[in-house]
Amino acid sequence: MRHFLPLLLLAAAAANAQPAPPASPSASQIIDNAPASAWRIVAADQLMLLEFAGGRKLAIELAPDYAPQHVSNIKLLLRDGWFERHAAISRVQENYVVQWGATTDAPLPDGLIRQPQGSYERPGLPATFRRLPYRDAYATIIGHSDDWPVAADANAHWLVHCPAMVGVGRDMAPDTGTGAELYVVIGHAPRHLDRNIALVGRVLSGMEHVSALPRGTGPLGTYEQDSQLVKLVSARLASTLPKAERPVFQVMRTDSPSFGQWVTARANRHDAFFIRPAGAADLCNLMPPARTVK
Amino acid sequence: MRHFLPLLLLAAAAANAQPAPPASPSASQIIDNAPASAWRIVAADQLMLLEFAGGRKLAIELAPDYAPQHVSNIKLLLRDGWFERHAAISRVQENYVVQWGATTDAPLPDGLIRQPQGSYERPGLPATFRRLPYRDAYATIIGHSDDWPVAADANAHWLVHCPAMVGVGRDMAPDTGTGAELYVVIGHAPRHLDRNIALVGRVLSGMEHVSALPRGTGPLGTYEQDSQLVKLVSARLASTLPKAERPVFQVMRTDSPSFGQWVTARANRHDAFFIRPAGAADLCNLMPPARTVK
Repeated sequence: MRHFLPLLLLAAAAANAQPAPPASPSASQIIDNAPASAWRIVAADQLMLLEFAGGRKLAIELAPDYAPQHVSNIKLLLRDGWFERHAAISRVQENYVVQWGATTDAPLPDGLIRQPQGSYERPGLPATFRRLPYRDAYATIIGHSDDWPVAADANAHWLVHCPAMVGVGRDMAPDTGTGAELYVVIGHAPRHLDRNIALVGRVLSGMEHVSALPRGTGPLGTYEQDSQLVKLVSARLASTLPKAERPVFQVMRTDSPSFGQWVTARANRHDAFFIRPAGAADLCNLMPPARTVK
Repeated sequence: MRHFLPLLLLAAAAANAQPAPPASPSASQIIDNAPASAWRIVAADQLMLLEFAGGRKLAIELAPDYAPQHVSNIKLLLRDGWFERHAAISRVQENYVVQWGATTDAPLPDGLIRQPQGSYERPGLPATFRRLPYRDAYATIIGHSDDWPVAADANAHWLVHCPAMVGVGRDMAPDTGTGAELYVVIGHAPRHLDRNIALVGRVLSGMEHVSALPRGTGPLGTYEQDSQLVKLVSARLASTLPKAERPVFQVMRTDSPSFGQWVTARANRHDAFFIRPAGAADLCNLMPPARTVK
């Protein structure tokens, strides 16, 4: 169709024609060749499946270790059917967030924790912490733990606002976000929100469905017309589906040798396209690889 | 319309109700109150105005100091009407780039520099360089010069791949990108491209029109059907329009006191929403404020 091959297409073609020597595989080859032991299956009771109008499906891994009260609330809202009755995307702000929640007065179910604790940081460093050797503008220590990108200081560690991370909308007081209003980061990581809002998970698939939504023209990207709202038509925990119907996702284990090789390959790209490998990478360009296997 | 005010809306409302004391204005107040001397008018002969099908308008400031041969080529292509005859958006890759160029065999005009020099870095540091005190994963020195985000080492400085930066698509050889194929960064900054591809400018307005396009389903986000192409219907340098019809854009002078105050306010957000100001900011979250004044 076109005379000028798009940027990087030839790079991909050349990588196929002249595979890198086995001693130095590319990042995508490392993913393809990683052994089964390098992958963790996302637990069905931590896998939230959303479908917005227009067939826009998101699969989200929840982070109960980091935000136990918020995740508990989210699971209650899922069981109750509250999201399906009340929620829609009502805000899409360029280079920032897509947000969904109730668009009408919608009483919250009994049992919901009305003022959950902040859940902004956890003490110390987790046993599974894998430190990155690269600099970060916002924290002195960065790395990964289990499936998550993490920043830390001498006293605590916390999840960070990379693209695809899911957080809890709140009002001015830190304890006002119940989990009934959620957002996902699109665009360059708004890391100034770290430790100011609770993060509760990460989109594993479907980002392209929400990041391509029209930006809202109201304050902070809100949709000004009801007709613009994108209704949440289905919201389920995978564990509530019959086993045969459950999608299965894997995330590369951040404590696996494959992950270490992948990080190094991403920081030192050596295919024929690159003149000068960076020698480093930003934490948010190192989101643990995820894939669906069913 | 909705019971739960979207995230941060109340923060904005409170900021209006209780303005910060004059000693510590917010980032947006600094922009609103900056004196005329803090703004630079973008030269009409460096302002590229694109309109894609569907009324999707982009205003792009070109960077001739950083990519003189590529910018010279782009201006020749604009004068020739080449973009309007041949170009369309043919690639939208999630969290990466939107790219446009020729979609059919399209001979390039006479006089075009067929193998422009790389233009990936300039020696030393410019006289107008303003260093940031924050860390960066990719470079030891970061800051701004004139209208641009810049990284540097002891020997050279270069433009960086922040969202909204515009670069030159190329094939494997560094001198194969003429400027006839261009892309704009959407999503988290792909800084590994720094010094591997020539950057030629920055989108000053209209990002929301291209970042919300459907993602392509072909390799690297290419559109697989001709019907998906988004035609470039108008491509002009502002200086070629009658004066009365030219839009006028300003960029905050990065050597102005207002810019320094704005950077500090962005790194230390203190409105009532924030529990813990970050104390730092990423270079790509500090793109110099731009606005249209006509």
